[in-house]
Amino acid sequence: MKTLASYLAGRWQTADRDFRILLDPSTEEPLARASSTGADFAAALDWARGTGGPALRALSFGARGEILKSLSKTLRERRAELLDLSRANNGATESDGAFDVDGAGGTLAFYGGLGLALGDRRWLVDGDGLQLARTEAFWTRHALVPKQGAALHVNAFNFPAWGFAEKFACAFLAGVPSIVKPATATALVAHRMVEIVLESGLLPAGALQLVVGATGDLVDRLGAQDVLAFTGSAATARELRGRANLLAASVRVNVEADSLNAAVLGPDAAPGSAPFDAFVRDVAREMTQKAGQKCTAVRRILVPRAHAGAATEALAARLAGVVTGNPADPEVGMGPLATAAQLTDALDGVAELLATADLVAGTGRRADGRGAPAGKGFFLAPTLLASPVPLELTPVHEREVFGPVATVLPYSGTAEEAAQLVAMAGGTLVTSAYSDDPDWLAGLVAGAGAWTGRLYVGSTGAEGFGSGAALPASSHGGPGRAGGGEELGGLRGLAPYLQRVALQGHRGVVDPLAGA
Amino acid sequence: MKTLASYLAGRWQTADRDFRILLDPSTEEPLARASSTGADFAAALDWARGTGGPALRALSFGARGEILKSLSKTLRERRAELLDLSRANNGATESDGAFDVDGAGGTLAFYGGLGLALGDRRWLVDGDGLQLARTEAFWTRHALVPKQGAALHVNAFNFPAWGFAEKFACAFLAGVPSIVKPATATALVAHRMVEIVLESGLLPAGALQLVVGATGDLVDRLGAQDVLAFTGSAATARELRGRANLLAASVRVNVEADSLNAAVLGPDAAPGSAPFDAFVRDVAREMTQKAGQKCTAVRRILVPRAHAGAATEALAARLAGVVTGNPADPEVGMGPLATAAQLTDALDGVAELLATADLVAGTGRRADGRGAPAGKGFFLAPTLLASPVPLELTPVHEREVFGPVATVLPYSGTAEEAAQLVAMAGGTLVTSAYSDDPDWLAGLVAGAGAWTGRLYVGSTGAEGFGSGAALPASSHGGPGRAGGGEELGGLRGLAPYLQRVALQGHRGVVDPLAGA
Repeated sequence: MKTLASYLAGRWQTADRDFRILLDPSTEEPLARASSTGADFAAALDWARGTGGPALRALSFGARGEILKSLSKTLRERRAELLDLSRANNGATESDGAFDVDGAGGTLAFYGGLGLALGDRRWLVDGDGLQLARTEAFWTRHALVPKQGAALHVNAFNFPAWGFAEKFACAFLAGVPSIVKPATATALVAHRMVEIVLESGLLPAGALQLVVGATGDLVDRLGAQDVLAFTGSAATARELRGRANLLAASVRVNVEADSLNAAVLGPDAAPGSAPFDAFVRDVAREMTQKAGQKCTAVRRILVPRAHAGAATEALAARLAGVVTGNPADPEVGMGPLATAAQLTDALDGVAELLATADLVAGTGRRADGRGAPAGKGFFLAPTLLASPVPLELTPVHEREVFGPVATVLPYSGTAEEAAQLVAMAGGTLVTSAYSDDPDWLAGLVAGAGAWTGRLYVGSTGAEGFGSGAALPASSHGGPGRAGGGEELGGLRGLAPYLQRVALQGHRGVVDPLAGA
Repeated sequence: MKTLASYLAGRWQTADRDFRILLDPSTEEPLARASSTGADFAAALDWARGTGGPALRALSFGARGEILKSLSKTLRERRAELLDLSRANNGATESDGAFDVDGAGGTLAFYGGLGLALGDRRWLVDGDGLQLARTEAFWTRHALVPKQGAALHVNAFNFPAWGFAEKFACAFLAGVPSIVKPATATALVAHRMVEIVLESGLLPAGALQLVVGATGDLVDRLGAQDVLAFTGSAATARELRGRANLLAASVRVNVEADSLNAAVLGPDAAPGSAPFDAFVRDVAREMTQKAGQKCTAVRRILVPRAHAGAATEALAARLAGVVTGNPADPEVGMGPLATAAQLTDALDGVAELLATADLVAGTGRRADGRGAPAGKGFFLAPTLLASPVPLELTPVHEREVFGPVATVLPYSGTAEEAAQLVAMAGGTLVTSAYSDDPDWLAGLVAGAGAWTGRLYVGSTGAEGFGSGAALPASSHGGPGRAGGGEELGGLRGLAPYLQRVALQGHRGVVDPLAGA
């Protein structure tokens, strides 16, 4: 069996024990094994801080952007190989794999473009200058300079390609070296991507390292100039964020946790209207794409009571057309969950939800998958529930089921009640709204805007990709339960890796200093 | 004796036990007593969230700005009274008190002006819009909307007026109600300011509450929409930030901790030059203003070895002219430390520093103060040390003595070594540099910029106020040991109180929605 290697302190290195086996989640066949036991993380951090950081800071934004553009091209040339690995290790359909792999390439290219536009600068000017006293002899301007530590990127199992790319692109463009740690169970794609990136010879030494397996004492070694960016469960985020060394040194921790995102149908969006059709199409896709294993997936479906019957029927009909199985079979529209543990957790979650909700479509039980051996594979067919008590604080607002599962919540149709329901989940990454009524939409922003990191509007004539895509131009992250972090959003995404410095002095000194 | 009251849930209320006595630190005479025992903090939070927040969000930025302008004017009319309280309870000289009280008024007026300039908006548009697909039918733009919780402001003892104003101005302008908790030992000034503000009738109900005494269970009651802004010691910040409820709900915690700030003399700034003179003048003032009890005070004085003798001599001479004593005496230039505990801590700190540094000026012991009863008052005369081993990690880089104490560190004169020394303190609020050499200054930003929140440049012709003033137009905060937070900096200071929402959809829908 293939043994995955970590790339640390300039060399590929494998462990000799404590291996975890990576499986094909459709067939449960072993694919590879991974372990980080014995890795010297102190040396890895030294290499990032001492070699990678200075090399990156010596490059201009333009030079860093050029490299990101080239990396995007290089990875796109290996697209077919990466999609194969994604199908094998993530159970991803062709379309799911493309969502991940093409999203990665697009994000690298986008940040490459931002770098090229910034040209020769090596740090960013932040805002205009301002006079502080009677003359320009006292003046202020802000600069954003690269932090001098390492960025540790702990990624989730569901987006091995995009998760790597979106964090790496921001850190790299900011001038900070990355240590990437993909989730072990689905590490094949990220591992291969890092191999391809390093083989390309495009990166300065120390700019990128890879950990396969556990992080050992790596988090405990982070200090004031380092950054921890984490995507995963709220529980793990809480544990990481509370580590004594991170608190003591004010280490920047950027968290993107999964959340109970809501899709909201507006009262004007009657059956037959364009927003109603977009709502049904989008919600069904957000539930089933990557088998619902997306932090941005729709978990709660808010429907005005007047349209609840029609909307539920239309959704159930659409979900019934989705074939669950091994993505190696061309008829399959939705693959398995990624691991046995994920399946168990999702089934437990459905059972919890069913204590206060009713089953509308699906069984809430493991199924055999088309094209997969009987009894094998981590399959769960699309599962739609409905809550008879949407305004009560039931598990529907608290228990995220990380699979193709969502619950219909009938509501009055007012923006205020929709906002109240959105807020009951304690903070979400994204909310989607389907309406042509600008006042209702403004009411939703006023009421629910503080509870969500993104609001996706499906109105007549809009041509969006749905609420599930975290696009590099828009901020990605959400308050409260969603982790309170922010990624992407153009140059905003560089913020965790930069230190803002307020420069003060004579304008003739400060302005050139800020723009260096 | 006067019993200070808290203002919570719409009424002034006093405790009946557990009082702490507020003293005049020059004479040790009691002034008042304070306790929060029995306060209902759940009701206070409900009042902020349920009454204050909605009222503030109903106001435009312009209306909020108008109120801040009026508050500034109202407080300025009471300037003499506030300076008296500052002298009595903080041991502040006229000039120290004005630094605090006028700083408060100026900050309120500055944010008032920002609000007026924003006019009718109720939330902020963040950056330009961007097309996400082939047409404007998929478009993104970001809005910053007010959080729907309460802002708890825990302030330090040294700036009762300014600390209140700088945090309150930002939260209020953002549209978030404040609960202000001044340090108990010096609460008289903040208590009176809040009385004046509330008596003015300018604020909507629920927009401002006051806690005198301990915070009880208030911090443990904060949730996803609340904000905690803390100024004080790094140790307390660490404890607060690690609270389980704050970690679980990703509560925004903005920390501004004291730090070992450095003033750096450039190698070109020879004795007799304008930067050299500015350096001596500024460092002596930053050491003695408010008896060195400023988070921005200079603690480490970096001098090129070639100028070390001249610089140390000039500083010692200047410090020798500072008369320490009761600020009620007009000859006094520097008052006492604020409390007995602060004096003890400062004396302990000097003893720790002296293990690896030499005394140049002062005694490192308590002194009697001019105009104060013998044996009474928390006085420590200006104390200058010098380190023979500046590049070793001695207490000089780690132990902050929060008083009129600083240490000279001779260095080679290169920007690289200066940056290395700045960094050895693990992150600072401010660094000041005295030089006319743009290349040396650029080298200092490149090397030390990531370790400091602000860089103040004293060059020939500059007319700054010194590095100690946290001005509202410049960001205030620093990385690592300094807490990792940011306050002020114009509209940047509103960020902790706002949620960024990425809006996506048709441009015709998104742009009006963002600008509402």
